[in-house]
Amino acid sequence: MKVCRRETFNSAHRLFRKEWSDEKNRDVFGKCSNPNYHGHNYVLEVWIEGAIDPETGFVIDLKELKSVIVAHIIERFDHRNLNLDCIEFEGINPTTENIARVIWNILRVKLDPKFGIEVQLSETDKNKAYYAGV
Amino acid sequence: MKVCRRETFNSAHRLFRKEWSDEKNRDVFGKCSNPNYHGHNYVLEVWIEGAIDPETGFVIDLKELKSVIVAHIIERFDHRNLNLDCIEFEGINPTTENIARVIWNILRVKLDPKFGIEVQLSETDKNKAYYAGV
Amino acid sequence: MKVCRRETFNSAHRLFRKEWSDEKNRDVFGKCSNPNYHGHNYVLEVWIEGAIDPETGFVIDLKELKSVIVAHIIERFDHRNLNLDCIEFEGINPTTENIARVIWNILRVKLDPKFGIEVQLSETDKNKAYYAGV
Amino acid sequence: MKVCRRETFNSAHRLFRKEWSDEKNRDVFGKCSNPNYHGHNYVLEVWIEGAIDPETGFVIDLKELKSVIVAHIIERFDHRNLNLDCIEFEGINPTTENIARVIWNILRVKLDPKFGIEVQLSETDKNKAYYAGV
Amino acid sequence: MKVCRRETFNSAHRLFRKEWSDEKNRDVFGKCSNPNYHGHNYVLEVWIEGAIDPETGFVIDLKELKSVIVAHIIERFDHRNLNLDCIEFEGINPTTENIARVIWNILRVKLDPKFGIEVQLSETDKNKAYYAGV
Amino acid sequence: MKVCRRETFNSAHRLFRKEWSDEKNRDVFGKCSNPNYHGHNYVLEVWIEGAIDPETGFVIDLKELKSVIVAHIIERFDHRNLNLDCIEFEGINPTTENIARVIWNILRVKLDPKFGIEVQLSETDKNKAYYAGV
Repeated sequence: MKVCRRETFNSAHRLFRKEWSDEKNRDVFGKCSNPNYHGHNYVLEVWIEGAIDPETGFVIDLKELKSVIVAHIIERFDHRNLNLDCIEFEGINPTTENIARVIWNILRVKLDPKFGIEVQLSETDKNKAYYAGV
Repeated sequence: MKVCRRETFNSAHRLFRKEWSDEKNRDVFGKCSNPNYHGHNYVLEVWIEGAIDPETGFVIDLKELKSVIVAHIIERFDHRNLNLDCIEFEGINPTTENIARVIWNILRVKLDPKFGIEVQLSETDKNKAYYAGV
Repeated sequence: MKVCRRETFNSAHRLFRKEWSDEKNRDVFGKCSNPNYHGHNYVLEVWIEGAIDPETGFVIDLKELKSVIVAHIIERFDHRNLNLDCIEFEGINPTTENIARVIWNILRVKLDPKFGIEVQLSETDKNKAYYAGV
Repeated sequence: MKVCRRETFNSAHRLFRKEWSDEKNRDVFGKCSNPNYHGHNYVLEVWIEGAIDPETGFVIDLKELKSVIVAHIIERFDHRNLNLDCIEFEGINPTTENIARVIWNILRVKLDPKFGIEVQLSETDKNKAYYAGV
Repeated sequence: MKVCRRETFNSAHRLFRKEWSDEKNRDVFGKCSNPNYHGHNYVLEVWIEGAIDPETGFVIDLKELKSVIVAHIIERFDHRNLNLDCIEFEGINPTTENIARVIWNILRVKLDPKFGIEVQLSETDKNKAYYAGV
Repeated sequence: MKVCRRETFNSAHRLFRKEWSDEKNRDVFGKCSNPNYHGHNYVLEVWIEGAIDPETGFVIDLKELKSVIVAHIIERFDHRNLNLDCIEFEGINPTTENIARVIWNILRVKLDPKFGIEVQLSETDKNKAYYAGV
C-alpha cells in the first residue's frame, strides 16, 4: 500500500557548470543556462509505502507527511533561487533529476526507516523525474 | 502490458473510531472527523496487467472493465455516505487507503484471475493511495 | 483588469426540500437527494475586477484576497456538512448555484465596494456555476 | 465568435520597488520579493474575437496566431529573468497583472485592429490575471 | 447566474475546401488537410444563463441539460467522421469555430428560449473556440 | 532514476479486423469500429531509466529525447490516419495497447540500449495503456 502527498514550490534556477565556458554551457544546456536565471512551478509528489495501521487506517498520517514536506522541502526551496539561496545545490546542477534526489535524501532522513519513499518531481507538464533511492 | 480505466464517484464520509472519545478522534483525524460528515470527488484508476489478445489487440475490453467498475464500485459508493450506506466499511475507517483496498478486493473477485490489478484512488488532487494486493 | 484566486473545500451535502415527500425529492433531485448525504471537492475561483495600483502593480494583493476567502469561506464550509453545519444554507438548497450565490454575497460584504466580484464554483469537473451579482 | 491559443513560458522574476527599503518590499510583497528571484511556469491564453471567414472557417488561423505569440512573447520572455533581461519591465513591477498588460499591448500592435484581444495569464494554478484593454 | 455542463466526444475530421486544389488546401490548412483525416478528443462546455428557480435552486437541471447534449450533440458527433458522417457539416469546414457554431445552433432550438447559451469547444489543450450567438 | 518527456499527437483510427464481418466488428469494437474513422488527442509519456550523468546532472538530455520522439513518433503519427497512413499498423489493430507497443519498439531501436524505456499512452482521460517491453 502506498499513499501520496502533492505539494508545489516556485523557484528560480539555471543549469550550468562553472568550470565550463559560457559557450559550452550554452551548447549543452541551451536556454536553460541563461545567466540571469529562469524559473518553474515545481510539482512534487511524495509516495510513502508501508502497511496500513489497523487503528487509524493510515499508512502515514498525510497531515504529518505534509508537515514534514513543508518544513524541510517547501520552506527551503519555495520562492528561492536554487543556485544562489540553497546550499543543498552547492556544486550540484539543479536539474530535475538532481532536485528529486536531493529531496529524496532529505526525506529519507526525516521519515521513519520503515517507510519506502518515492519522489516524483515535475518541472513542467512535459518534463518530470522520478527517484526511489539507489 | 497494462491498461487503465478511470472513473469517478462522489461520496460523504468521516474518519473516526467509535470506541474513541470525540476528543481523541479530533486529535487524530482533525477536521476529517466532523460528526456530520464531509465529502469528496473520488477519482479511481484501475490498471489491469495482462497479455495483448492477438485477435482484438486488447488486454481487456475497456468497455467491459468499465461495466464491472460501474456495477460493483460506482453503483455502490457514488452519491452515498461511506460510513452509513456501505456495509463494506462496517468497522473499517474509510481512509483513502482502506477504500482503495476495499475496491481492490471487490475487483479481484469480479475479474479473471489471469489479470494483475492495481488500484489508484485520489481523494483530492493532493492525497492519493495505491494498492496492488499483498 | 481582473485577477483570480483559486481555493478548494470539501463538503457533504444533499439536495432536497423538506416540504416535499421523499418520492418527490427522489424524482427531482435523483441520487443527489440521498438522505445520508454525499460530497464533493468544490473548486472556487474568485475573480476581482479593478484598476492596477501603480505602486504595487496589483489589482488586489492576492495574499489578502486569499486570507479573506480562507477566513470567510473555507473556514466555514470546508470539511462541513452544508445542510447541517452551515446556517448560511438554512432553508436554501445547497445547489452549486446557491452555494456560488452565498459565497458571492459573503465576499461582497467583506471586500472593498470598488472591486467587481465574480465567483465560479465547480462541484465536479462536469458541473459548474458562475455568479457576478444581479 | 472567439478563438483561443494557449502557450507557456518559464521565467524568473521578483516583485519589488527599488525606491523602497528591503524591509518595506518584504512587508508588501512577502517572499515574492526574494532578492535572488524565484520563478514560474506561466500559462498564457490569448483569445481573439472576430467574424468567421466564410472561406476558411477561421476567425484567425491559429497557426499564424501561434507564430505571432511565439515570435513576440515566448521568444522575449521564455527562460528569461523578467526584471533583468526584459526591457518591457523596466520600471514596471512584473506582477501577473502587469505581465498580462504588457503582453496585451504587444499583441495589440502585432495583430489586425479588426480583432478583439483578451489575455489570460496564470502564474500558478491558484493565481491568474485577465486583461482586455482599457 | 450561469451553470455549465461539460461533455466530450471523439471525432475524425479534415480541414479543406473541395473547390480548392490539394496544394492550396495544404498551403492554407497544413497537416490539418490530410486527405485520410485525423482526429481529436473534443471537450464541450455548455453554459446556460438564467434565473435560479426558487423551488429547486437550479438555473436548469444539469441532468436534463446533459440529456439534451448527449441526445443531440454527443450521439451525432461522437466516434464519427465529421466530414463524412455528419450532414450538419455538408459544405461547412469543420473548424473548431464552425463546430462550436453548429452546436450552438442545435442547442438554441432544443433549449427553452428563456435561457442564454454559450458554447466553449476545445479541439486540443491549446486550441479553443467560444460562441454565444450573434 | 527515471525522467519523463510528454508529447501529444492527434490521429484518426478505427478498430476492426478485416477478416470479420461488419456485424462482428460492431459487436466486438462497438462505435470504435465506425467505418469512416474517429480520432483522438493521444498523450504520450516516455520514461527513461538510467544513471545521472555526474557532469550534466541528466539521465538523458530531455531536449534530445524530445527530438527522437518528434522525429520518429510525432512526425509519423500526428495528423495521420493510423489505419491508412501508417505502415506500422498494417495488420495490427490500432488499440491503445498496440500503439503503445509500436511506439516502444520504435524507441527501443532509436535509444541507447543502456536506458530502460517505459511508454504510457492515453487515448482519452479515461483510457490509458502502459508498456515497458516484455
